Amino acid sequence: MTETREIRINAFEMNCLGHLCGGLWAHPRDVSAGYKTLDYWVDLAKTLESAFIDAIFLADVLGLYDVYRAGPEAALRYATQVPNNDPLLIIPAMAAATSHLSFATTAILSFEPPYTFARRMSTLDHLTKGRIGWNIVTGYLDSAARGAGKEKQTSHDLRYDVAEDYMAVVYKLWEQSWDDDAVVADPTRHIYADPTRVYAVHHDGPYYQINAIHLSEPSPQRTPLLFQAGTSEKGKGFASRHAEAVFLNGRSKPNVQASIADIRRRAAALGRNPHDVKAFVELNVVTAETEAAARAKFDDYRKYGSIEASLALLSGWMGTDLSKYDLDEPFKHFESEAIRSGVESLTVNNRRGKVWTVRELAEATIVGGSTTTLVGSPEQIADALQEWQRDTDCDGFNISYAIRTETITDFIELVIPVLQERGVYKRAYGEGTFREKIFGRGRARLQAPHPGAAYRKNRLLADVDSA
Amino acid sequence: MTETREIRINAFEMNCLGHLCGGLWAHPRDVSAGYKTLDYWVDLAKTLESAFIDAIFLADVLGLYDVYRAGPEAALRYATQVPNNDPLLIIPAMAAATSHLSFATTAILSFEPPYTFARRMSTLDHLTKGRIGWNIVTGYLDSAARGAGKEKQTSHDLRYDVAEDYMAVVYKLWEQSWDDDAVVADPTRHIYADPTRVYAVHHDGPYYQINAIHLSEPSPQRTPLLFQAGTSEKGKGFASRHAEAVFLNGRSKPNVQASIADIRRRAAALGRNPHDVKAFVELNVVTAETEAAARAKFDDYRKYGSIEASLALLSGWMGTDLSKYDLDEPFKHFESEAIRSGVESLTVNNRRGKVWTVRELAEATIVGGSTTTLVGSPEQIADALQEWQRDTDCDGFNISYAIRTETITDFIELVIPVLQERGVYKRAYGEGTFREKIFGRGRARLQAPHPGAAYRKNRLLADVDSA
Repeated sequence: MTETREIRINAFEMNCLGHLCGGLWAHPRDVSAGYKTLDYWVDLAKTLESAFIDAIFLADVLGLYDVYRAGPEAALRYATQVPNNDPLLIIPAMAAATSHLSFATTAILSFEPPYTFARRMSTLDHLTKGRIGWNIVTGYLDSAARGAGKEKQTSHDLRYDVAEDYMAVVYKLWEQSWDDDAVVADPTRHIYADPTRVYAVHHDGPYYQINAIHLSEPSPQRTPLLFQAGTSEKGKGFASRHAEAVFLNGRSKPNVQASIADIRRRAAALGRNPHDVKAFVELNVVTAETEAAARAKFDDYRKYGSIEASLALLSGWMGTDLSKYDLDEPFKHFESEAIRSGVESLTVNNRRGKVWTVRELAEATIVGGSTTTLVGSPEQIADALQEWQRDTDCDGFNISYAIRTETITDFIELVIPVLQERGVYKRAYGEGTFREKIFGRGRARLQAPHPGAAYRKNRLLADVDSA
Repeated sequence: MTETREIRINAFEMNCLGHLCGGLWAHPRDVSAGYKTLDYWVDLAKTLESAFIDAIFLADVLGLYDVYRAGPEAALRYATQVPNNDPLLIIPAMAAATSHLSFATTAILSFEPPYTFARRMSTLDHLTKGRIGWNIVTGYLDSAARGAGKEKQTSHDLRYDVAEDYMAVVYKLWEQSWDDDAVVADPTRHIYADPTRVYAVHHDGPYYQINAIHLSEPSPQRTPLLFQAGTSEKGKGFASRHAEAVFLNGRSKPNVQASIADIRRRAAALGRNPHDVKAFVELNVVTAETEAAARAKFDDYRKYGSIEASLALLSGWMGTDLSKYDLDEPFKHFESEAIRSGVESLTVNNRRGKVWTVRELAEATIVGGSTTTLVGSPEQIADALQEWQRDTDCDGFNISYAIRTETITDFIELVIPVLQERGVYKRAYGEGTFREKIFGRGRARLQAPHPGAAYRKNRLLADVDSA
């Protein structure tokens, strides 16, 4: 066991009332109703920074969980990721209240024209002084497609072709349009930018065409730190080329281990250092001073959850309407490999080995949501995290919550000190941008052989600088 | 003279280095370089709120001023609205630092899919507790169209047809999708939203199609306070239907007077109260303790400006490359009515009555940018503002700047107290949302006969509530 390997922690959040747990906002100590206010986010950001949490990782979903009972009723009633608000707009207020906390935000490229999206991310990178990451999502709910006037989402494989074309456009805007020394900013000579060092980006791809100068001057990172969570064959190919960090669902340790090994093998085959793809595993944590107190807390949480809310989430994730099945019949309806693997990993995780009923599946997700919930004393949680790291070769965790903000506050107050004591969690932030905090000083920007770096015009000079 | 009519003041800003003046960021006291930082915007917001300024009005431009010398060189060199960053993303940090200051932001609808744009504005309306306005712009620079893969902007008239269709979609999302009582938020009954009171929006228009529930729950204002600045025939028709406030260039007092009267006549013809269209006139103000000191300040500013930077701006606004003409020849090249009217209003404004040379035109815009600069003692400025209000029937002013943040700080420290002394400027903010601050308590939301209000399902009830 590599006892001294550093563990990274992100807080997994979403700008909505109910993110991953089945209706637990109904718990009397839950403060999720504050999601509409700046106070909620600013207070959370300060709390996270007080414990040197690496980043807040913001999910986003366009569309509704409307597979269950063929409608959005359950999702609306239990506030299952709806209503939700734009994640980008909470970041500036959190950034103003912090100095080191980073922000990894999901943005769904099919709704973001690349010319203006590139400016949005450059703006955030400027305002946060380089503390921005982008979780690249191509979109997955049909109801979001209907929001754009389409009947269904673009087919999965085609979406990744579109995404490849999109990445080429935004890399050109971020990396190629302005040389590092384009901004002179000399008032005595009346010159801000040297026009000979600013270039119009030309792109004539299958899905996107552009002929324009990037509107923003170079920001600390240029390209935001790139996260991706692709699990399909196409998705893994995309992630191995572009991702600097991948984010994995923590339902099954063997699946996570295999996925991380696979993505790193693929990255290495492309000439990248396999450890230039960091891996974060989503886990939920319920902890208290003792194991018994943690178990009591877990049981208390469960009382406030809802089977219906969980079924709405599960039906959306599985793409199958679970209302069609008897709640107390063993669930064997594996219409797809994804469902089989999802259900099996729940089963494996529970170590019971039997076929679950629909009710058991739903109950298992009330507190944990889409992932495993670790329940135990701070030492037990720290042990489990170190085991997860040893067994899967992950770099850190996206800690989701059962209730807000108690779950993350408990984690910060109880678990972080144990990890620090064991020498696996930092006692101060690293300097520099998000990318530097993850990969080390001098790596503020993409570097070869990452495909984004190849777009930089004066990349030889830049590579020398960052070596 | 209606001595006691209230005057409203917005600060006219843009998330860039050089907004309207020809390179004046080169002045030693100018702090525009801070535009990339949250500190700049947060400090500005606090300053504005300390003087009860109504709103910060944020311009936005996608694309470049590349008409002059048929390229962007001058715009880049003098930082003429390029580089620029996204305006929406500075608002949350300013909102967190203030309680009453409102935020009117430009957003260019051709780059914003309505489904996600509606959520963006709802998010801002939630986070600011109803302090959001939207300056509706359809886009006007060809270089921005090239950023979207098109050769030229959609033709002017067609753009307004597209905009009408767009407004129908966003009104439906903001006003129709969620009833006022849709959010129950009762944890004891495990119910957040009543699904019978949330509706999918159906729209099958010529340019936009949608079949989706609005993702955000109702925000304080639902629809943001709507600004528009249309001056063409089509643009005025659009503004008279949708605008709750119009924003006019202050080059010529007679033109402004005629425009305001025209827009209110048109609004009245549609059954609206003509004074439900508020009018804000853009003016620049250079002031000091005495007239002589103000004139000295003005002369000092001018020394740091640049004719070239002004020519880049003027060429973009006129759509004609002024480098084709001799700087010292009288300018008579009225290729279009817009140019004639622009140049004539500069001339009228200067009260010299002669035909200007290109150099004189450019010099006249160095400090004033696109509008009139008032230069004088605080009392003279207050007189001039009251005269502008009396002569044009405007409700207030968008005060642009010569240098940052001295221009607006001078205005706040010197002119606001005089206006307060005369009883025409508030000594405290009104309560409520942006719309209520402008139109009075109980008017948080659009009301009939504004076309947006007609989309609200339970509008009869709502109208009773707000009556």
